[in-house]
Amino acid sequence: MQQIYFFNEGRRDMRSLLGGKGANLAEMTHLGLPVPQGFTISTVACHDYEKNQNQLSAELRAEIAQALGQLEEITEKQFNSVATPLLVSVRSGAAISMPGMMDTILNLGLNDQTVIGLAEQTQNERFAWDCYRRLLQMFGNVVYGIPEQTFESVLANYKRRNGYRTDLDMTAADLKAVATRFQELYLESGHGAFPQSPQEQLELAVAAVFTSWQNPRAQVYRELHHIDNNIGTAVNVQAMVFGNSGADSGTGVAFTRDPVTGKHKIFGEFLQNAQGEDVVSGVRTPQGLPTMAEMAPQAYQQFLTAVAKLEKHYHDMQDVEFTLEHGKLYFLQTRSGKRTAKAAVKIAVDQVGEGLIDRNTALLRVDPEQVSNLLHPEFAAATLAAHKPLTKGLPASPGAASGKIYFTAPSAKAAHEAGEQVILVRQDTSPEDIEGMVVSEAIVTSRGGMTSHAAVVARGMGKCGVVGCEHLIVDQQKQQVTINGTVYGEGSELSVDGASGQVYAGVLTATQATQDQNLQTLLSWAKEIGQMDVYANADTANDFAQALSFGANGIGLTRTEHMFFKSDRLLKMRRLIIAGTALDRVEPLAELQELQTEDFYQIYRLAQGKTVTIRLLDPPLHEFLPHDAKEMARVADALNMSVSALEKRVAVLHEANPMLGHRGCRLAVTYPDIYEMQVTAIVNAALRLKREGVPVKPHIMVPLIDTLPELKWLKARLVAKINALLAAAHTPLHYQIGIMIEMPRACLIADQLAQSADFFSFGTNDLTQLTFGYSRDDIGSFLPTYLDQGILKADPFKTLDVEGVGKLMKMAVDKGRYARRSLPIGVCGELGGDPASIRYFASIGIDYVSVSPFRVPSAILASAQATLQRNYQASKATVQAR
Amino acid sequence: MQQIYFFNEGRRDMRSLLGGKGANLAEMTHLGLPVPQGFTISTVACHDYEKNQNQLSAELRAEIAQALGQLEEITEKQFNSVATPLLVSVRSGAAISMPGMMDTILNLGLNDQTVIGLAEQTQNERFAWDCYRRLLQMFGNVVYGIPEQTFESVLANYKRRNGYRTDLDMTAADLKAVATRFQELYLESGHGAFPQSPQEQLELAVAAVFTSWQNPRAQVYRELHHIDNNIGTAVNVQAMVFGNSGADSGTGVAFTRDPVTGKHKIFGEFLQNAQGEDVVSGVRTPQGLPTMAEMAPQAYQQFLTAVAKLEKHYHDMQDVEFTLEHGKLYFLQTRSGKRTAKAAVKIAVDQVGEGLIDRNTALLRVDPEQVSNLLHPEFAAATLAAHKPLTKGLPASPGAASGKIYFTAPSAKAAHEAGEQVILVRQDTSPEDIEGMVVSEAIVTSRGGMTSHAAVVARGMGKCGVVGCEHLIVDQQKQQVTINGTVYGEGSELSVDGASGQVYAGVLTATQATQDQNLQTLLSWAKEIGQMDVYANADTANDFAQALSFGANGIGLTRTEHMFFKSDRLLKMRRLIIAGTALDRVEPLAELQELQTEDFYQIYRLAQGKTVTIRLLDPPLHEFLPHDAKEMARVADALNMSVSALEKRVAVLHEANPMLGHRGCRLAVTYPDIYEMQVTAIVNAALRLKREGVPVKPHIMVPLIDTLPELKWLKARLVAKINALLAAAHTPLHYQIGIMIEMPRACLIADQLAQSADFFSFGTNDLTQLTFGYSRDDIGSFLPTYLDQGILKADPFKTLDVEGVGKLMKMAVDKGRYARRSLPIGVCGELGGDPASIRYFASIGIDYVSVSPFRVPSAILASAQATLQRNYQASKATVQAR
Repeated sequence: MQQIYFFNEGRRDMRSLLGGKGANLAEMTHLGLPVPQGFTISTVACHDYEKNQNQLSAELRAEIAQALGQLEEITEKQFNSVATPLLVSVRSGAAISMPGMMDTILNLGLNDQTVIGLAEQTQNERFAWDCYRRLLQMFGNVVYGIPEQTFESVLANYKRRNGYRTDLDMTAADLKAVATRFQELYLESGHGAFPQSPQEQLELAVAAVFTSWQNPRAQVYRELHHIDNNIGTAVNVQAMVFGNSGADSGTGVAFTRDPVTGKHKIFGEFLQNAQGEDVVSGVRTPQGLPTMAEMAPQAYQQFLTAVAKLEKHYHDMQDVEFTLEHGKLYFLQTRSGKRTAKAAVKIAVDQVGEGLIDRNTALLRVDPEQVSNLLHPEFAAATLAAHKPLTKGLPASPGAASGKIYFTAPSAKAAHEAGEQVILVRQDTSPEDIEGMVVSEAIVTSRGGMTSHAAVVARGMGKCGVVGCEHLIVDQQKQQVTINGTVYGEGSELSVDGASGQVYAGVLTATQATQDQNLQTLLSWAKEIGQMDVYANADTANDFAQALSFGANGIGLTRTEHMFFKSDRLLKMRRLIIAGTALDRVEPLAELQELQTEDFYQIYRLAQGKTVTIRLLDPPLHEFLPHDAKEMARVADALNMSVSALEKRVAVLHEANPMLGHRGCRLAVTYPDIYEMQVTAIVNAALRLKREGVPVKPHIMVPLIDTLPELKWLKARLVAKINALLAAAHTPLHYQIGIMIEMPRACLIADQLAQSADFFSFGTNDLTQLTFGYSRDDIGSFLPTYLDQGILKADPFKTLDVEGVGKLMKMAVDKGRYARRSLPIGVCGELGGDPASIRYFASIGIDYVSVSPFRVPSAILASAQATLQRNYQASKATVQAR
Repeated sequence: MQQIYFFNEGRRDMRSLLGGKGANLAEMTHLGLPVPQGFTISTVACHDYEKNQNQLSAELRAEIAQALGQLEEITEKQFNSVATPLLVSVRSGAAISMPGMMDTILNLGLNDQTVIGLAEQTQNERFAWDCYRRLLQMFGNVVYGIPEQTFESVLANYKRRNGYRTDLDMTAADLKAVATRFQELYLESGHGAFPQSPQEQLELAVAAVFTSWQNPRAQVYRELHHIDNNIGTAVNVQAMVFGNSGADSGTGVAFTRDPVTGKHKIFGEFLQNAQGEDVVSGVRTPQGLPTMAEMAPQAYQQFLTAVAKLEKHYHDMQDVEFTLEHGKLYFLQTRSGKRTAKAAVKIAVDQVGEGLIDRNTALLRVDPEQVSNLLHPEFAAATLAAHKPLTKGLPASPGAASGKIYFTAPSAKAAHEAGEQVILVRQDTSPEDIEGMVVSEAIVTSRGGMTSHAAVVARGMGKCGVVGCEHLIVDQQKQQVTINGTVYGEGSELSVDGASGQVYAGVLTATQATQDQNLQTLLSWAKEIGQMDVYANADTANDFAQALSFGANGIGLTRTEHMFFKSDRLLKMRRLIIAGTALDRVEPLAELQELQTEDFYQIYRLAQGKTVTIRLLDPPLHEFLPHDAKEMARVADALNMSVSALEKRVAVLHEANPMLGHRGCRLAVTYPDIYEMQVTAIVNAALRLKREGVPVKPHIMVPLIDTLPELKWLKARLVAKINALLAAAHTPLHYQIGIMIEMPRACLIADQLAQSADFFSFGTNDLTQLTFGYSRDDIGSFLPTYLDQGILKADPFKTLDVEGVGKLMKMAVDKGRYARRSLPIGVCGELGGDPASIRYFASIGIDYVSVSPFRVPSAILASAQATLQRNYQASKATVQAR
C-alpha cells in the first residue's frame, strides 16, 4: 500500500490520510500555486510504525529513499551535495492540530560538508552556521531527547564568556564554535555522533515524529479532548527555500483584506533578502508590499493573482506566507486570516454581497464572543501599543474607560455629581456598592472571578470591568491602592481595558461604540435562523430598553433584589429584616409593595406583551444589612435602634456558607409575607396596565426549589393570593409560576417538579457551584493552577461543563419533558452568553437563553450558529444513512 | 358483593380489605378473646362511595341496617332504646395508619332520650351528659365541619361565667346546658338539627369517614409517603363498653413483660369503676393489677390466660387495653408494646431462648437507633420525672452528664486538670476547641444542627452533646450564659441529657453504662447475618481501640486533620500555612511528617492487618488559623511575625463559602507537598511495622475529587512518591489509593473515576449539602419550619434523602461497577449510622459503612436487618413469581 504522497497527489479532503498540514500543502499545489515541493508520509505509516514495535519498516524506508530521489529531481538539488545541497523541513501534522507533539525540524540535510555549500550558495556564512546549529539543537532535542536546556546553556555560557548581549552579536565563527560544541554534546549524552548522512537524519526524524504521537502529554491531551488515539499523525517533508539568498530574494506575509477594518484591499508586509524569522522577530522593520512590487514586478503580479485565487478558492479572507528566492515566488502557507470583530463582521457581510459565500456561512464566520466588543468603547491598538500596562486582571466586562479612582460608593457618587469620570476600585463589591457602580465608568477589584458580584453586575450594566486583579493591594482604610509598589490615592487617574483585563496609569483615549450597520445586517439574518430564543436579564426599565435595542425578545430574569438596593429602599428593606414579628413587617412590606408595583409597571409597559419573567427574592437577608462599624452606626440611628441590637441581628443572620444558606424560596417558607408582597405588586402592576389597554403576561419565577412539596406549598400560597386579588378586581389575568432549576436535586426530580411548575429556567451559576462544590467567589485561589495544569479545560463558570453540569441539565430536560411534553425551558445565567454553551443548550432542547443586555447580540449569533451546526450534523447523518 | 364483615368473619391477613384496626379486632375475636362485638365496613365500600359521587349506595345502607340488627341481637341492647341503649364507636382504619383522617366518634347512638337511659344504667348522670356533649362535639366537627374551636369556646365561656377552673368542676346540669347549647350550634351553622335517629347518625358518620379519605391533608400525606390513593379506608363499628358501670367494673392497661427492664413478668395498671380516659388523663392514680385480682379473681385468671395467649400468638410482648363491665372482661386493643432499649434487647434474646421467636426475628425486633443509648450513661426515668428541664436543644450525641460549665477550651482544660467535671458551653465550636471538648463530660452549643462541628465531634468521641439550644444566650465575653432570663456564670452546675436534648440545673445522678450481655449476644448474631461490613471513623488509636471493642471490622475514615489540632502540632501546622514558598514549608512539613508517622504507626499496629483508610488533608487552611484578636496576638508572637502580617494572611485565606472553597484535593493541587508529606508518613509507618512483622495494608483516600484529570494528576504524584520510598527501602507494599465520592459531579462521572480509583467511599455529608444546596451549619434557620410544614420528611443529614442524594449514589455505584465490577464501595459519613439509610445502602450494593465508634453496634444491627429484609423481599418475589 502507498505510504507516501507527493503534494501534487493530495487534496484538502484527504486530511485523515495526510493530516491537516499535508492536505493544505497538497491543495495549494493542486491550485497550481508555486509551493516548495515535497511529500507527506501518511498516517497509515504511523499505524504501521506502532504495530512494528516503533521501527520504520523496510518498505517505508525504501519508499522514503525513492521519494527523496524524486524530490531531488524536482528541485534539481541533491541531498549531501555541497554545490546544490537539498535541505528539507520535517513537520508533524495530524488531522486535528494538537500541542505536545514534536512539531518541526528545519534545515535537515545539513552536515559538516553541506553547511559550507549553503554558505556559498547564500553568500552568508553566518546564516549557514546559524542554520546548522539550529538543526543540531532541534534534532538533538527531538530525536535524542537531549534537554533543550542543555543546548541553551551552552549558548548562554558562550555569550557570557564573550560579553555578548544577544544572538545577533555572534559571528559566523562563534556559531561554528557553538555547533562544534553541540556535536560534542551528542557524544557526551551517549547517543553517538550527529548523523552526517541526510538519509539517516530523515529516517530518525520521521521515527521521532511517530514516537511523539505516543508521548504522555499528547495522550492526555487526546483523552481530554476525546480525540481518537488511532487517527495517528502524518509527516511532511518539504524542500527549504531561502528568502535571504540575495537582493532578488525576500519574504513576506499578506492578508487578502484589511484584518483591522475589513476593507477589501490587500494588506501585507515584505522584507528584502530576509527569512521568515526576520519578519517575526522584529529585528528589522518590514516594508510594505509596494517594495516587492518595485523589486520584482512580475512576481508581484503573479502574487496578486494567486492570493485572489486563494480567497476565492477558500471562500474566506486568507493570511499567506511567501518567499522570493532569486526572484521566484513560493507560497509556504495559506490559512484563514485572523481579524478584529469589526473586520470579521464587515468581511462576512461584504462577501455575501459579492456572492462569495451565503448567509449561513457568513453567520458561521463571526465569533459571537467578539461581537459584544463591538458594542463597547475600546482603546485603539495603537494607543495600547504605546502604553505599558501597570497590571492585569480578569477581563470581566468589555469596554474601555479612563477616570479618577474612588474607593467607596458614596465618594464615587459625590465625584460623579461633581462632574468627574469615576473608576471604582475595591477589594471586592457587594450589593451595597451598587450605587457607586452605577455612576462609575469602570469597576476594578483585586479579588473575585469572572462571575463574582463585581463581574456580573458590571456585565449587566454594560460597564467596563476588571476583577481579580491580584497585584492591586487595596487599602480601604487609607483610601489608596498600591500597584507594584506605587501608591495611587483617591482621585488618581487610571485607564481600564475591560477587553484585555489590563490597567494603565493616566488617561488613554478610547474610541466610542458606534452602531455598526454590518452587525445589524448580520443579526437580522441570525434572528431568522436561530431556533433558540434570546431574552435579556434586566432589572430596570433602562436595562430592558437597552436589551430591546440589542434585539432581545423579552426578559428571562428580573432580579427583584436589585430593586431593594437603591438607597431610599434599602432602609425600608432593613426595617423589614429587623422586624421581630410578622406584625412588625406589615408596614415596611406595604411601603416596598408600592415601590415594586411601580417598578413592575414600568417594565411591563415597555414589554408591550413580551414575556417578562420576574424572579422573587433570592439572596439571604444578611446581604441587605450593613457590614462595617460606620455603616452599622448610621443604620442603627436611621432605624431607631441601638447599635448593639443591630449587631445582634446581624450576628443572628450571619451564615457560615451563605451560598448554601437561608435564601431563595427557603426565605419564603419561613417568611411567606415577602413573596406574597411581591406577587401582589406584580398583579397590581399588571391590572393597572390591563386597565390602560396594554397587553401583559407576567411570568413569576421561584428560585432555589429542591423538592415538590416545597414547590406545592409555596405555589398554593401564591396562587391563593393572586386569585384573591384577581377576584377582587373582577379581572382575569394570564400568569405563569415557574421555577429556577439550580440545585442538583431539582435536576434529579425534574419529572416531579414539571407536574407543578409552569416553566423551568436553569440557573447555571448555582448549578455549577453545587455540582463541582466550587464557590465562584473563592475559586480564584485554585482555578489558575487547575487551568495551567490542564486539570480543567476551561473555567466552568464561563463555559458549560458538559460532562457534569451538562449531564444534570440534560437529565432535567428529559425528565421534565417526559412529565410534560410542552414544558418551556430556558437558561438564565452567565453561561447563556457563551457560544460553546449555547451550542450544548440547543442540542438538549432548551427553548431560550437569557443574558445580560450587552451579551444579547452574541447570544443571537450563537443561537443561529447552533441551529446551523445542528442542521449540518443532521444532514451529514442523513447522507451517511443513505 | 359482601361489604360488611363481623369481627368473627375476619383474620389479621385481611388488612387490605378490613384495614389494620379491623383485621386486629377480628384476630382477637378469632382467638376467642372477649372483644366488644361489632363489624367492619370494608374498603370496597369506600371505593363504591367514591364512584357513587360520595353517596352511600342503597345496598350498603341496607347492609348496615342488617348488621346493626345482628349487633343488637348479639349485645342484647338496642339502638334508640332508653332501657338498654346500644352505643357504638365509629373509627376509620386503613391498611396503613395515616394522620389527617377522621379518626373516632364515640358514644354514637346517644340522643336526647338514650342519654337518660345511659345515666340510669351507669347510675352516673354526669357521665352520661358528658358522653353526650362529647358525641355532639365530635359529630358536629367530623360530619358537619363545625370548627372544633366553636365548641371549645362555648365550653370555655361557660366555665368562665361560672368561675370554674377545669372540666371536673362541671356538674351534670352544667354539661346538660352545654349539650343544649351545642345542639343550637348545629342549627346556627345551617346544617339542621343534630339527628336524633341513631341509624342516621351512623350513616352520616360512615360517609364522613369515607369523605375524609379524600381530604387534602390525607392526599398530601399519601403522596409524600407513596401510598396508593386507591387502597381506601375501612370503618369499624363497635359496641361501647363502660368500665365505670359500678364497683364491679374497671379499666386498665398491661404489658406482658416489663417494658423498662424486659423482665418476663406481667406489668400493668388498673382503675376500679373508671373509663379508659381516666387512666390516661392522670386525674386518678391507678392501682396495680393486684387490685383487679382481689376484686374479680375469676376475670383476673381469664385475663392472665388471655394475655399469655396473645403474646404467644403475636410472638411479641403485647400492650393490651381492657375493661371490666359488671365483672365481665373485654379486650379493646392489643399491640406490640413499646419498650426501652434495654428491655428490647433482653426480651428479644429471652424469647429466642424460650423458643418463641428465631434469631432473625429477634434481630428485627430491636431498633438500631436505640442500641447506642445502651452504651452511654443515662438519667433514670424517675430522676428525669423529678426535675424540670431548663431548656431543650437537639439531641446530638447520647449520654448523660453533670458538671461545672466553662466557656473556653483553656478554662475547661484548667478546670479538668483541677479535678472538676466539666461541661463546655459555647455558641458553636470550631476545631480550635477540640482540646476543650476532649476534657469535657458534655458539650452544649446554642447553634448548629445535628451535623454541626460540635455534634459530629461529640458523637465521634462518644460524649454527651446537645446542640442548637436556641434559648441559650451565650456571652463569650462575660463568660456567662442566660437561660430564660437566669444567668449562669463560669462554674455553675448543669446537667445534660444527650438522649433527649434537655438541659437541667444542678447535678442529676446518671446510671453508668454497663456491658450488656444480651446486647453482646444479639450483636454476635447480627455479625453472622449482615452482608454489609461495619467500619469505624477513628482519628486516634484510642478511638480505634474503642471501635474494636464495639465490634468494628476496620477503619473506614481517619481524618488526618484532627491530628493537627493538638496544641503542640497546631503551631507547626500554622507555621506551614504562613510559609510563603515551598522552601519555607520544608521544615514544618518535616516536623509534621515525623509526628504523623508515629500516629499512623500506632493505628496500624492496633489494626493488625485490618483495613485502615486514611483520608488526606480535607479542610481549608484557614480553619487552622486563629480567629479572635487575643489568639491572633499569641500566635503571631509564637510564629515570630507581626500581628498585622498574620492578619493579612488570615484575610487572604478567608473564604466567602469555605464549604465550597479551597480544600481537600484542591489544596493538594496547589500545594502538592502536603499530600506528599502525608503519604510519606503512611508509607514510613507501614515499613516500620513490616520490619516488626506486623501485617499492614494502607488504604489512602483522597477527598473532594471532581474530575478524572484531577484524580490522575494527584495519583501520579502520590504513586511516584510512594514507589520511590518503597524502592529505596527495597520492600514491596500492598497499598490502595481510593477517593471520596462527595461532589455531585463525581457521581455523574463515576465510570471515569472508577478507572483510576482503587475504591470509592461516599461522603454523605458533603454530598447532601451540595445536592440540596444546604449548608449543614446554616440549616437551623429554616429546617424546623420545613419539618413542621411537612416539606421535608426528615433532616437529610440524619436520614438519607433517597429520592435525590440516593439517586446520585445509585448512579455512582452503577456507573462505578459498570466500569469495574469488583470496585469496593463504602459510605463514611453520619448517615452510615442511620438504620433507614443503611437499608438503602444495602439495596444499592454498598460494601461497608463507616461510623463513629459509639454507632458501631447500631450499624452492625442495622446491617443485619437490611440483609434480612432484602432476603424477605427476595423470597416474597420468588413466591409471587411461582
